Formats: sequence, C-alpha cells, structure tokens
Amino acid sequence: MKLDHILHGGDYNPDQWIATPEIWDEDMRLMKQAGINAATVGIFSWSLLEPEEGKYEFGWLDAVFDKLYKNGQSVILATPSGARPPWMAQKYPEVLRVEETGIRNEYGVRHNHCLTSPVYREKVREINRRLAERYGKHPALLLWHVSNEYSGACHCELCQRAFRAWLKKEYRNDLNELNERWWNGFWSHRFTDWEQISSPKSRGENHVPALKLCWDRFVTDSHISFFENEIAPLRELTPDIPVTTNMMGFYDEINYQRFAGHVDVVSYDAYPPYDAADNKKTAAQFGFTYDAYRSMGGGGPFLLMESTPSVVNWRPVNKLPRPGRAAQAGLQAVAHGSDSVQYFQWRKSRGGHEKFHGAVVDHDGRGDHRVFLETAALGEKLKRLAPVAGSLCPAKVAVVYDWENARAVRHYNGLNNEYRDYLAECLKWYTPFFDRGFTVDVIGQEADLSPYALVIAPYLYMLLPGTAGRIRRYVENGGAFVATYLFGVADKDDRVFLGGLPGDGLREVFGVTARETDSLPEGVHGLMKYRGRTYRTARTCDILRSDGAAVLGVYTSDFYAGSPAVTVNRFGKGAAYTAAAGSEDEFTGHFCEDLIRKLKLKPEAGIETPPGVYARARGEYVFLMNFTDDRVSVKTGGGYLDLLSGGPAPETLALPVCGVAVLKKPDAPE
Amino acid sequence: MKLDHILHGGDYNPDQWIATPEIWDEDMRLMKQAGINAATVGIFSWSLLEPEEGKYEFGWLDAVFDKLYKNGQSVILATPSGARPPWMAQKYPEVLRVEETGIRNEYGVRHNHCLTSPVYREKVREINRRLAERYGKHPALLLWHVSNEYSGACHCELCQRAFRAWLKKEYRNDLNELNERWWNGFWSHRFTDWEQISSPKSRGENHVPALKLCWDRFVTDSHISFFENEIAPLRELTPDIPVTTNMMGFYDEINYQRFAGHVDVVSYDAYPPYDAADNKKTAAQFGFTYDAYRSMGGGGPFLLMESTPSVVNWRPVNKLPRPGRAAQAGLQAVAHGSDSVQYFQWRKSRGGHEKFHGAVVDHDGRGDHRVFLETAALGEKLKRLAPVAGSLCPAKVAVVYDWENARAVRHYNGLNNEYRDYLAECLKWYTPFFDRGFTVDVIGQEADLSPYALVIAPYLYMLLPGTAGRIRRYVENGGAFVATYLFGVADKDDRVFLGGLPGDGLREVFGVTARETDSLPEGVHGLMKYRGRTYRTARTCDILRSDGAAVLGVYTSDFYAGSPAVTVNRFGKGAAYTAAAGSEDEFTGHFCEDLIRKLKLKPEAGIETPPGVYARARGEYVFLMNFTDDRVSVKTGGGYLDLLSGGPAPETLALPVCGVAVLKKPDAPE
Amino acid sequence: MKLDHILHGGDYNPDQWIATPEIWDEDMRLMKQAGINAATVGIFSWSLLEPEEGKYEFGWLDAVFDKLYKNGQSVILATPSGARPPWMAQKYPEVLRVEETGIRNEYGVRHNHCLTSPVYREKVREINRRLAERYGKHPALLLWHVSNEYSGACHCELCQRAFRAWLKKEYRNDLNELNERWWNGFWSHRFTDWEQISSPKSRGENHVPALKLCWDRFVTDSHISFFENEIAPLRELTPDIPVTTNMMGFYDEINYQRFAGHVDVVSYDAYPPYDAADNKKTAAQFGFTYDAYRSMGGGGPFLLMESTPSVVNWRPVNKLPRPGRAAQAGLQAVAHGSDSVQYFQWRKSRGGHEKFHGAVVDHDGRGDHRVFLETAALGEKLKRLAPVAGSLCPAKVAVVYDWENARAVRHYNGLNNEYRDYLAECLKWYTPFFDRGFTVDVIGQEADLSPYALVIAPYLYMLLPGTAGRIRRYVENGGAFVATYLFGVADKDDRVFLGGLPGDGLREVFGVTARETDSLPEGVHGLMKYRGRTYRTARTCDILRSDGAAVLGVYTSDFYAGSPAVTVNRFGKGAAYTAAAGSEDEFTGHFCEDLIRKLKLKPEAGIETPPGVYARARGEYVFLMNFTDDRVSVKTGGGYLDLLSGGPAPETLALPVCGVAVLKKPDAPE
Repeated sequence: MKLDHILHGGDYNPDQWIATPEIWDEDMRLMKQAGINAATVGIFSWSLLEPEEGKYEFGWLDAVFDKLYKNGQSVILATPSGARPPWMAQKYPEVLRVEETGIRNEYGVRHNHCLTSPVYREKVREINRRLAERYGKHPALLLWHVSNEYSGACHCELCQRAFRAWLKKEYRNDLNELNERWWNGFWSHRFTDWEQISSPKSRGENHVPALKLCWDRFVTDSHISFFENEIAPLRELTPDIPVTTNMMGFYDEINYQRFAGHVDVVSYDAYPPYDAADNKKTAAQFGFTYDAYRSMGGGGPFLLMESTPSVVNWRPVNKLPRPGRAAQAGLQAVAHGSDSVQYFQWRKSRGGHEKFHGAVVDHDGRGDHRVFLETAALGEKLKRLAPVAGSLCPAKVAVVYDWENARAVRHYNGLNNEYRDYLAECLKWYTPFFDRGFTVDVIGQEADLSPYALVIAPYLYMLLPGTAGRIRRYVENGGAFVATYLFGVADKDDRVFLGGLPGDGLREVFGVTARETDSLPEGVHGLMKYRGRTYRTARTCDILRSDGAAVLGVYTSDFYAGSPAVTVNRFGKGAAYTAAAGSEDEFTGHFCEDLIRKLKLKPEAGIETPPGVYARARGEYVFLMNFTDDRVSVKTGGGYLDLLSGGPAPETLALPVCGVAVLKKPDAPE
Repeated sequence: MKLDHILHGGDYNPDQWIATPEIWDEDMRLMKQAGINAATVGIFSWSLLEPEEGKYEFGWLDAVFDKLYKNGQSVILATPSGARPPWMAQKYPEVLRVEETGIRNEYGVRHNHCLTSPVYREKVREINRRLAERYGKHPALLLWHVSNEYSGACHCELCQRAFRAWLKKEYRNDLNELNERWWNGFWSHRFTDWEQISSPKSRGENHVPALKLCWDRFVTDSHISFFENEIAPLRELTPDIPVTTNMMGFYDEINYQRFAGHVDVVSYDAYPPYDAADNKKTAAQFGFTYDAYRSMGGGGPFLLMESTPSVVNWRPVNKLPRPGRAAQAGLQAVAHGSDSVQYFQWRKSRGGHEKFHGAVVDHDGRGDHRVFLETAALGEKLKRLAPVAGSLCPAKVAVVYDWENARAVRHYNGLNNEYRDYLAECLKWYTPFFDRGFTVDVIGQEADLSPYALVIAPYLYMLLPGTAGRIRRYVENGGAFVATYLFGVADKDDRVFLGGLPGDGLREVFGVTARETDSLPEGVHGLMKYRGRTYRTARTCDILRSDGAAVLGVYTSDFYAGSPAVTVNRFGKGAAYTAAAGSEDEFTGHFCEDLIRKLKLKPEAGIETPPGVYARARGEYVFLMNFTDDRVSVKTGGGYLDLLSGGPAPETLALPVCGVAVLKKPDAPE
Repeated sequence: MKLDHILHGGDYNPDQWIATPEIWDEDMRLMKQAGINAATVGIFSWSLLEPEEGKYEFGWLDAVFDKLYKNGQSVILATPSGARPPWMAQKYPEVLRVEETGIRNEYGVRHNHCLTSPVYREKVREINRRLAERYGKHPALLLWHVSNEYSGACHCELCQRAFRAWLKKEYRNDLNELNERWWNGFWSHRFTDWEQISSPKSRGENHVPALKLCWDRFVTDSHISFFENEIAPLRELTPDIPVTTNMMGFYDEINYQRFAGHVDVVSYDAYPPYDAADNKKTAAQFGFTYDAYRSMGGGGPFLLMESTPSVVNWRPVNKLPRPGRAAQAGLQAVAHGSDSVQYFQWRKSRGGHEKFHGAVVDHDGRGDHRVFLETAALGEKLKRLAPVAGSLCPAKVAVVYDWENARAVRHYNGLNNEYRDYLAECLKWYTPFFDRGFTVDVIGQEADLSPYALVIAPYLYMLLPGTAGRIRRYVENGGAFVATYLFGVADKDDRVFLGGLPGDGLREVFGVTARETDSLPEGVHGLMKYRGRTYRTARTCDILRSDGAAVLGVYTSDFYAGSPAVTVNRFGKGAAYTAAAGSEDEFTGHFCEDLIRKLKLKPEAGIETPPGVYARARGEYVFLMNFTDDRVSVKTGGGYLDLLSGGPAPETLALPVCGVAVLKKPDAPE
C-alpha cells in the first residue's frame, strides 16, 4: 500500500447517530475543520446493514460514502464480523462462542463468535460479498478493515473437531509421535485415539505445556483461516483494494508475526499511557511496539489504526494527558514508520460501554473544545509531513521478540514462577539503542538475520526448528549475537534439549554450558562483576561453565560466586555473547555501550539528544521528540530543513514540552 | 405506626430450642430481667410450621405467643419466606434460585428462592394466610415482619420472561425506543425481537449499562411484587396490623427508596463497628444511615430491627466493643428517630453458621454475663425514654443519596474506574453538619426539596426525568443547592446529555459548563485555592468554564491551573453552587461552614459539643452522646430536664466514656 | 516393616524413556554411582501397562525389575490408580471426577477420579491383582506404594448416594438426630428425607459447619475404602509385602491420623524450603511434621517417600538451596525417625508439567553435575547410618495436632475470621521443645496420653466424644496439660457446649470459665503480665474467670485488664494450665521454660547446642545438625562415637554450614 500523504482519521460510526441526521452534516463540517482525510466506517454496523436475515439495507451507508467523498475523505471500509446482529444468535446459536468452561455464551459484547462455525463463516462471507459488490468501485474506498481486534477462542464441539484435525496434520497422523513429543508418558497420558484429545481447560487437561502450545497455534490458524474466509470475496471483487485488520500490541493469543503474512498492510491500535506513567518508559515501550509492527510488516510503513486524542475509558484511572501530548504520541508513530494517525473514535458515543472513551468530538458536539482544537492543529502538521509517507527505516540492530517464545515462557512451570516478563526483558535490551537514536528492528526467531550487525535475543527459551542453524550461520558469517538466561532450553513442543544447555548445537557456538538456574524473589539481589564494576543480579540467573568462551563477568555472591555470568565466544567470523544473569537497566546500558563501541555502530538519527528527548530516522527525515517536562535545546549541527515550519532548522533547536520537530537531512535532495 | 414506648426486643428463635422446653421458660424469666418488651418470632420457622406439604403445626407457636403475652411482651410476627423447608425444594425445584451463571442452585442457605415462581408465591401466600388467620387477633401481635433481608435475584426462565414483560412496559412496547435509549447502535446490538434480550451475565451481555440499570429496576420491582404477594392475605385478614420488612443499610441491589413506599414503617438492621474502627467516622456513617431511613419513611419514626449487644460473626475480625458501647449505639438510633432497639438475636444459637454472633443470652445461658447485664441496664433506660417515642426530627438541610444514582455510578465505565465511592462522597458532605448538631435529611433525587434551606447533591451523575426541573424551581424559589463533580451527566438510561454538562437545562441554573474531567490515582493530588487558602484535590476533578457564575475557587496545579473549581450562580432568588474538584474533609468542612454562615443556619440540637461528642435533636429532646475515649464536660446553658435521671440537668454536664444524656428542652412543656 | 539399612532411592520413571532404552542402562550405572538402593516404579504407568482395555503389557516392567534387581536395588512397586489411561475416561466417563460445581471433569491431570465409581474400583482392583500376580514373588519387591498422594473428592451422583448412606450410618438412621445435631432449626433446614441432603457446595448448602465436617469425614472414609479396595488383591496375593501410600504434610482434606491405621508403614513427601525462607523456622516446622508422621505411625520408623535433591517447580520462586543443604534435609528426616531418604524423581522429565522439578540426574544426563555428586555423597553417608535403621524415639512431651480439630477450626464462622492458623499455633508451642533437644510426639486428640509427662493442646476448639474424659483422667493421674484459647468450645458436630466453657466437664478440671473472646486484627496488640514481665497479646484472647485456679498471669490492657490470662489448676495429682491469650514466641518460650523446670524434664538429646543447631535423639544415636550460616562448635561432653567418621567424636565438635554429625551415645553398646 503506497500513500502520498499521511492518513488522519479514525473510526466513524454514523450508524450510532442515525436518528439525528443533522449530526452527520455537522460531522462533515467538523472533519474538514480538523484536517481529517480518512474515515473508517462499518465496524459494528451489521445489525443495521442486515436488520433481518437476508434483508440488506445499504441506503444509509450509501449516503455516508457519498457525504464523505464529497467532503474529501477516503473511506476505510470495515467488515462487520466483530459483532453480529441479535437475530443471528437467536436463530443460529452455534455462531456464539463456547468458553473454556464448556458452556456456550449467550448473546452479548463483541468477539463472541465461534471461529469454526460454518453458518457464521457463510454469513460473514455473504455480507462481505455484498459490501464489496456495492462499494468496491466507489472512488472513496481506500482500504478494507477486516473485522476488529480478532481475539479469543471458541471451545465448542466444532472447534474441538477442527483442533483434532489440526493435530493430525501437525503430527502427520501419528499419535505415537504426539505422545512422545507431548511427553505423555508423564502422568500416564498416552492417547490411543485422537478423540481423547480436547482443548486445554481448567476442568480438564491443563498441565500439558505442549497441548497448550498446540492449542495456541491452532487458535492462531483458526483466526487466519477465518480471516481468509472473510477476504475471499474481497480478493475476488476488489483485487486492488488492500486489506488489513487492526492488531493489539503484544496480545499473545494470536501469533501476529504469523498473521502479518496474510495482510497487505499491518495496522495497530496504540494507546500509550503518557502522563499517567513514566513518559520515558512509555516512549521506549511504544517505540519498541511500533518497531515490532513495522518489522512484522516487512519493513514497509504500517498504519496506526486507533489511538485516542485524550484518554481511554478502560484503565483503572484515566488521567488526562497534558495539552499537545496526544499529537506528539501520534507523531511518534509516524517517526517509527506509520503512515497514519487515526482515532477511536471520531465522536463520543452517547451511551453504551465506551461513552467516556476520548474522541475528537466530545459530547458537547463543539469545535472549540481543547481536544478538538489540538486534533485540528495536528491535522495541519500532518499535511506538511506528506513527503514522509512511504519512507522506510532500515536497521543494523535487531532485538528478537518472538510470539512462540512468548507463549512457551507463559506455559512452562518451575524456576521463577513469579517473574516471567518476557516483554520487559526485551525492553531492557532495546532501550539503550532507543535512547541513543538507533533504528532497531524487532523480529521473530524465524526472521532472516543477515541484514544485521547485532542481534539480541533476550530470554529465548524456545528454539523452533531451524533457529539454532540460523544463529550458527549468522555468527559464523560475522554477526554478533547476544543471548541471556534460559536460552535454548526447549524445543517446539517444550521438551528440554538433552545433553546440556543451550541445546540444538548451540553450546558449541556460545562456548558455554548453563549448568543450573537460580531464582530470586522480587527484592532479593545477588552480585556480579563485569569489567571491574559490580552490578546487582535479579530474578533468574543461569550459572555457566565456560567450555572455551572468554569470561567477561562473574558472579560474586551466593555459592556460585566465581562462576561465569557474562561470556563471549568467537565463532567463525562472529561473536556469540551470553549474559546469563537476570540484570537491571544499569548493566544492560553499559553492556550495550560496549557492544556499540566494539561493533562501531552509528545511530541512524545522527543527532545527539538529552535524556527523554528522542531522535529517530525515517527515510531522509529525522524526528526529534521532547518527552521531558521542560523546554529543551538540541544541537542539530546545522543544515537541516524544518518540515513543519518549512524553513531551515536553526543549529540549536528549541523544543517545547511535547514538542516534535521533523528535519530533512542536509545531504538529502529536497 | 404509633408507639407510646420504645420497643426493646429482638429476634427470638425458640424453634431452635424446641427439644429443650425448659429453656423457653428460662427465656421468659431472663426477658423480664432484661427489660425486653417485644419479641420477633417465626423468621425461619417454615420447616417447623409446615413440616410436610399442607400439614401445618402451630401448636408450638401458640405456646410461644401465650408465654410471651403472659410475660408482657409484644410479638412481631415474621413471615417465613426467607428460607424454605427442604421438602419444597425437593418437590418443586423451580422455587430455587438460578444465579447469574444460568445454573439452578441446590437447596441451601437463605434467600435462595425465585422471585417469580408461581409455586413459591402461592406457597408463601398460603402460609402467610394461615399465620394471619391464627394469630391476627392475638392480643400480643404488634407488627408483621415480612420475610427477612430481601436480597439477590433469580435468572431462571420464568424471571427472564418477567423481565421481558417489564421491559415491554417500560419502553411502551417499542423495541426501537429501547434500542435508541440503550444506544444499541454501538457494537451492533439492535434487537429485533424481545426474546433476544436476557438478564446481564458474565457469559452473555455484560457491557450495556442501560440493560444493567433496567435489570436493577426489574429486580427491585420483583421484590416489591413479591412483597405485595406476601402481604395480600395480611392486609385482608389483619388490616390494622402494620407491616415492615427489615432492610440493610445502602444495599444497592434493591432501591429501598422505592420499596419504602410499600411498608407501613421502615425498619433497618444496623451493625456499627464501634471500637473496631474510627468511632467518629462510624458515628457519622450510622447517623447518615439512620437519617436516610427516617427520611425514606417520610420523616416518621423508623425501627431499629436488628443490632448486636456485643459482636457480629461476619466481619474479618470481630473485636469486642467496650462496655457501654452497645447501649450507646442503640440510643444513637433512637436519637436519630428510631422507636426501637432490637437485637439479633435473643439467645445465641448452639450450632450453625451464626452461633458466634453476639446475643443477649450467651451460650452459658446466664443472667450474670456482662453483655446481659448491660442489655438489662439499657432496658431500664429505654423505659424512661418512653416520652421520646413518636417524636419527629424536622430538618432544614438535606443531602441527596439516591439509589438510582448509586447504580448508575456503579455501572458506567471510564474516567476514574478505581474510585467510585458514592456513599463516601455523600458522607464527606454530611459530616460537617452532623458534627455541628444539625438535623439532616438524607433524600432521593425524587424527593420534594421545598422544605429545605440547603440541599447538597454530591456526585449526582444521573438525572431522572423531572429532577432538573425540581432543582431549577428550588433554586428559583430561593433555595441553595450544591453540586459537585460529574453532576448531571447522564439520563435515566445512562445516555450522556448532549450539548454540554451539566445537562437537562442545568447549565443555565449553575452558570457553568464542565468541559473535561481529570482522574487522579489514589495518593496523587492536585491543588486548588478557595478564599485565599490552598487545598488538595483528589480522584475526580471537573474542569469548569464559567458561563456567568462567580468563581469562588480555582485550580492551581496541572495544565488546567486557573480554571474554576468552585463557583456560585445566583439564579432566581437562590444560589446554585458547583464544587467541581474531588476534595478532602478539610475543604468540605470549610466550605460548609461558609454555607452555614451565609445561610444563617442554626443547629437544631442547640448545644455545642466538643469533637467526638454529638448532639442531636429529636422532637423536644436533645441527645448528647460521648464517642470519645475520655470523660467530657458539655455546657448545656441550663434549664434542661435530664430524662434518664429524672432531675434537672446541671449546666455543665459530665458524660463518661460511652455516656448518653437525653435532655428535655427548657421551653418545651413537660 | 523392619529394615536393616536406610533406603536411598526415589521415583523411577523409565516408562517416560521407553523410546531410548540406552538411557535405562545409563540409569543403572548412575544409580550405583549415587549409592541408590531402592527405586519406586510404576506410579503413573497405567497407560503403558494396559494400553487398551484388558490388554496388559508387562514386558517393559519385567525388564525394569530385572535390571534393578541385578543392579542391587530394591523395588517399591506403585499401583497406578493416581492417573488413568485416556481410553478409560473415554469409555467410562463415570471414572472422572465431578467437582464441587456439579459438572463432570474432562480427562486430564492426576487425581481426577471418582472414589465411588464401581467401574473405577473394579479396574483398579484388576490392574493391582495383575501386578501382584506378576511381581509379588519377585525378589526385588520390597514394598507396595499404593496410588499417589490421595487427595480431593468427587461430587457425582454415585458419591452423593454414598454420602447419604454414610450419614444414615453415622446418625443411626435417625433424621431427627441429624437435624438436632446439625442445628437445622436455624434457617429452617430441617430435613424430612435423606434425599434432601447433598454435599456442601457454593451453589447449594455452604453454611452448615456440621455438614462440612460430615462431608470431610465421608471423604476420608471414601479414600480409606478406596484404599482398602486397592489393597485387597495385594493382601491376598502378597501377604508379606507391606503397603504404604505417600501422604502430604498436614493436607487437611483427608484425616491422615485415621488413614494411618490402614497402612503398614507411614510415608510422607517432604519439601522443606530451606534457604528460601527462615531456616530455623523451616527446621522446626519440618521437625514437627516428621514427629507427627512418626507419632501417627505408632512411633515406629516412617519413610521419607519423596523429597528433592535441589529445588521443586511449584513454589512461586524456586531458589537453589546451598550445597549440602539437601543432604542435611534428608538426614533431618532420619534424625526424626525416617528409615529412608527418597527423591521425586531420579531423572528429570524431558517434557510435561514437572520437567523443572529437581531430580538426581539433570537434563544433561551426567554424573558430574553438582546435584548428582552431592546425592552420591549422601548415599555414602547413609550406608554408614545403617545401624540407625529401625530405632525409635520415645517422648515425654506431646503436642496435640488433631485433624478433626483442624477442620472444625477451618469451618466455624465468627470471632477472628482472619486468623485461624491452627498449625502455626501448634508450632509456636512445639518450637521451645524442639530448640532444646526434646523428643516430642505430635498426636491426635484420640491418642493415649498416659506415656507423657506434659501434653500441650493449642487451640483445641473441638472435643470429640471421650477426649474430655481422657484429659480429666490424665490430669487426675498426675499429668500436666496445657490448653490455650478457644479450648473445648464445640462438640463433634460443632455445637457449642452449653453452660460455660471449656465444655464437657472440663471447667472443673481447669478451674476456669472462659467468659468472652476478644479478637484483634493483625498488627494490633494488647498486653498481659506473667511472672512480673509484660508480654504482647494478639489475635484471639479468651477472658477468663477463675473458678478456683491459681492466676499466673493477667491482662493489663483493654477493658478486661485484670482478668486472668494464664492459670493453673491442681486437679487430682496433676496440673491443668490455661494460657488463654493469643501470644507470641517470647511468651511461649518463657512459659515452656517454666514448665520444663517445674516438671524437671530432661531433653532426650542430652547435648546443648547453640541457636540454629539442633540435637535430636534417635534410639542410641544423637544427630547434631547445623542450620546456621556459620561453622559452629558443639560441646558434646565426650565419649561419643562418630558414626560417619567411624572414630570417636571430639569433645568439641566442629560442624560446618549444613553439617550433620551422628553420634552414638557413650553408654550405649556398640
């Protein structure tokens, strides 16, 4: 998907206001005023589009399309499968979901559908076909927004049957193979008939990690298959309109890294809690997330599909962000590769569950509300950022965040059961690069490593088939690879590699064996020494034996004092590091600084910034973003063009609180 | 109901001791000794009264009535519907309740019945008829105590049908009207058939506030209808015997303000945790509750139906109150308008769930136990307080606590989800008046405001139809009205008023618009300035714009520093105040002092007391109650008669710890 | 069961490794190296032994038996009922458990079977018969290990019927008797048909303590009956092979004190959290548990059936114990009467739920792993301790920990609902004796008291029939008995004794009446004075009246200051003490010191040790164990033989951290 401008829009739900059509006209006027150029419609419109079975009513949507088109908006058209009309649940109870309890839900809320139900799949395909037939050629149509935030799973008998079919395929119809790989000799669980297997549930099987992993994979595949069923008529009738579906951060019940291969453009709903938490941490966490989405989309621009211009309604306490923050948050997404800033939603609902979720237009309906005015000001800026659209963010550093590993870490039992925060571990290693203006890719373990000079894989407990080989070749060919504790412990079915860890041949690459793992409760710390300095250890510590690796750091407390904690092994042309101790930010900061120096890495942004001010390169542009609570000065070195002002950027640039500057690099053609 | 003495009694369960009739005789002796003049019998006697279907056994109850009568006791006769005999559940499973899960309960505990079941309603009517026939003319019979602590709800198919019928009536058989008012355009929930609607439940619809509100109202109406079914034979056969049912504080699943209209006298079960928590807070909280019950009963005396002479059994830790405290707590209820002090229960159960709940007679069965002796001493005092019975407590100040608003606040989602303590907000505004000896009415939003000089409505989020008009007329006619944050946000179906808040025409009355709402986590504070002094703000703060109101206080922190936080608007002959910041006791104390001064309000009690000593007027009597941990002196100003000693009260009255004095006003006829 | 050496072994699961028989051979080699002399096999082997209904496959187990036998190991053969094959659940759903919810489980996990199901009982009997037939005469067979950690309960209709039959027997077919003893007059629960009774459940009856107690007793009896069904073929075919089943500490859903009467030798799975918690507390707590198991086995040696050589996998954080600690923990069990040190498990599972549970052989499969080497070193020591096997630990002091009382305390409602830690209360009174080298029996309330000079019964709330009489006779005959708060409150059906507490005639013995009970929240303290010194009181305090007892201590705070808190009553030739205040370690320490002095008790160990170093006598041996973090010196007084070194022990013995010495007493024949 190739855009020549940044999309500025959001979820537009005129169907909630169908009884007051004068509000539709007011919407058009206000959208123009706010610099809105795209509207996402139809997300929850099924009960209006098909008020009774087979009876379609498109008149109202025709009017919406035409109004938007006349007003200069593009339309992102949603398929309505995220919530179904009550009549459908009444007539076909099978479309409703059966939760883990084994009891079928009643009608209600969203996402409450069976992923397997033939009836539901047919109904979805049919409404999608009608939408494609009617609007596929409409000049306003830009993009398909398929369903909404796919999530959850169904445990009905249809899904159980589908799960068993999935297992048969996965284990090549060989139940003994499954028994062996699930380690069913434990607790006498050897199956003799596929019918004996059911989804994991609290009142059934809930202690077999391999079953849980398979179920997770099946659920991902069910969502993909459901998605493919949804888009079949769209592909047929509108082959030139790209499709996306909006994803949710690191939601781990669907492997988004797999799902991303099925959409034309990746899109993401981002709700950073700025001003309600530590802004520096929030900036790094959302930078990481944007980088993950950009990376899973193959590096091309992604779309920020939802965000809020003020607050959400679902946090325990929804503190107002300060003026200018929401706009800055939107621009941060653009800095990391988004070609859009879009909101949930255009106008606050009058009733229902989300009526206090921030929106561009408040319940007062006015264009002089603070939030509205700030949105309009951002709209103005985004127009000037049109040249940024489509530009890429190539990186030399990658951090591995892998969905399969995330689930494996969630499911295993033992060691430190209290602390399993895989995402936090990844952020700890990402932040030093984020702080210093590096472009970082966030990749799965199956990604191609060859573009990178440095790959860091924190807490990579599970190795899928092929991963060890890719790591070995990457290092052999000159790459630098950093592993941490509990690295390479288990295979795809969560069986521990025998004969010493890390497994699957990696002991040779890293030159160490992890002999034991110590676990420390929150608040309890050990010590290690690295390059003459003492650091605290925490949570999970592997006790290493060097089998040839150079020892860079050792433990200095507990009975394993003197054992290696940090090592490096030359292997082929590269270097394999192990940082085996659960560590804190101070250590990872210093260690990454050493890596940067040793590998002679240069930050892509190229402009040094004070703490809390972040520089980020995108194509030939550099974004500077002030997340501190003070006005700051940044030395640019001169020669930059200021895209927002249109003139040359001063050598020392002043950034107010929440300020963002977008500079065109001196040596880039204008 | 008109009494010429204060009732002193409690739940009397001789049926638990039917195997040991000698204990019945001992009860008579001890009741006399303890000054007991009323006994509530039959609450859980169904399985003894009707041991098998249609076979009634009244002999034992005849004996109890006669013994009590001979002993000088009045009888409060309970209907037994609070718990049914096992045989009934066995034969008619439909009488048992279906919980929110959709699964029918087994037999057990109390309150475990369907409110709709025709079988259960018939069985209840029949046993009640038999009781009325047999005891309606008994000279000991004083009052009907219908069932026990009505609570909960049933989700069975009979109740679902009744709920749908209720909805049809509420929405005049117009499903589109319901769809619009429930905002069902959101999430595609437009119903096309009444059969598509079901009660809110975790595995069904649980995100539609209007559905929850309707269900709450239906449940209230079901209880009322169940109650009306219960009393039909009582009304027919004993038209002169009043009926009540014992209520539980601010239990919010039943709208007691509605239910109160159906009883002849309001009664309440009070268990203040004196000596286990801050006594001053407890005193204010229970003062507030008594005032609410008196107010919902139309201002006439109410009955304290249950209390404990020592401890309860259901708090996490049941600390013994100090000697004299239980008696003081009982007298506090009288001070606020109760014509009774009654206990649960007379004699501790030997077994079962509540055997460690305090009672007048302990397991030792003796009349020399501390608790027994204190109860007897109170009995003596209550005799002397006979003249107080029936006297009223007219008030010039009212605080609005509204049941419909309580549920609306509970159900909405967003803003500060962590803090929604409506009751605490009301108490914060009640306490300054309580501390200063004012009589305060605690009223619902549908009450007549005209008797008051000042009405305070904290956190009145929901406006029912008519409320805004009543407030407008009240202020126009010279009343002072205080609103706080999130005032007038939503209508009866929890739809936000459009066009600016407070809604329903109240912006004109208050002269302000609430533009945004900030939410602060526990422990985080902002600042505001009011009359030259700085106060902390907390939790929920509306940011106001004055549309003409005078600004009395402004925020002095965060991005909205300078915005109005406290305003007053002259409207007609009155004044409409908005105190928009979530505040602490210090601010409400000072603000209420200013109101008292400005409105020239005089405390009804007329005697100034030190902190922790409370004065309360009832009719021509003033109660003085020492809740501090020290002996205190109170200057009465002289001329009072001391009702307990019978002589004149000294000018400076000494009150020991837990001491209570009851003075007759000097200018009142003896 | 009489052994001439200490068993050193553990759960051996070669069936998990059936696909890699080379690992079986490696196991034999490593077992020899580790000094392993026993292997427990077959615990979860059913799906391998009977892969389809009626088709048995013993070949692999034959091979295991033979390999072990050739290798010098004894075999402890498990019956496999702890987990069943999937085909059985598929074909006979009735074998699966119905939880408290009333919904039948699906296949999964362990312990998931109905205890009543005739099908399951038959299947278990049949597989057990086959095992006995095939291996009953095998020379390696040492012991039957019946099932695994019996636990839980089933609520299916078969179990309901069995429960009703149990009740009919318990209440001699008299429903009125049941109604009276369950106090069913309360809440109108008088049953008129046995069919009206069902197991306690959250959506049914859950507020009747007597029902809960009966259900607990029924569940215990169901397990025993299930066990008797299991062992019937073993008794028939292998009358000379003893049976055991492994128990779990103070798991309170089965009354182990009752169950113990049905096994030939008591065995226990112990997982002390050394080095992850306070080691002194852990040592005392596990000392107490070992003493309880030894006592419930009649004083003879018991077996440590499971333990870990490193960490478990189920604690929130599984910190590695320091080197030597696991061996020390094993030797502590031997010191307290165990004739074995056995592990779960021999080799870490490769997959499944417990793969990170510590084992002798790690995933690396190597014999040079730290854990393996320490296990082997312990194996060497255990060989030298062979003479200790079979020796007893007679005691003069007993602490009562009673299973029936544990449940009664758990079920009643009221007083201090937040603190009901019966075990902690017992430990508080046990520790002073443990610290000083006393041998202590931990007995149920039905035990014979005559062997003891001192019996302490903390928090003995429930008195079973006969207990009061036994206490009375014990004191009359010269015994010293210590009771604490809430002593003798309720009878077997949790009915409070009438007429004053302690009940059942004990007021006369103790010379006091407990008049009221105060409850203090955590962190709130009162004061008492005992022998001139002030102590803090806490949690639960009975306020006593002396009816003749000498007052040793009084409360000095709250309104009951001056009331007796500690008393002693001479009764017959003995002394009955009441320590009525919830106290802290300091008071119990001083009070027990006084008792020791007064009763002239001498510690059996006979060697004084510094704090954290524990001495323990077993037969003619004394174990000295250093649980401090430092090397310590212990003065032995000389003349001892050091069993581990084989030479004489020095007069001043040095014990390193984790060190254990086993000395033979000077006056004992060699």
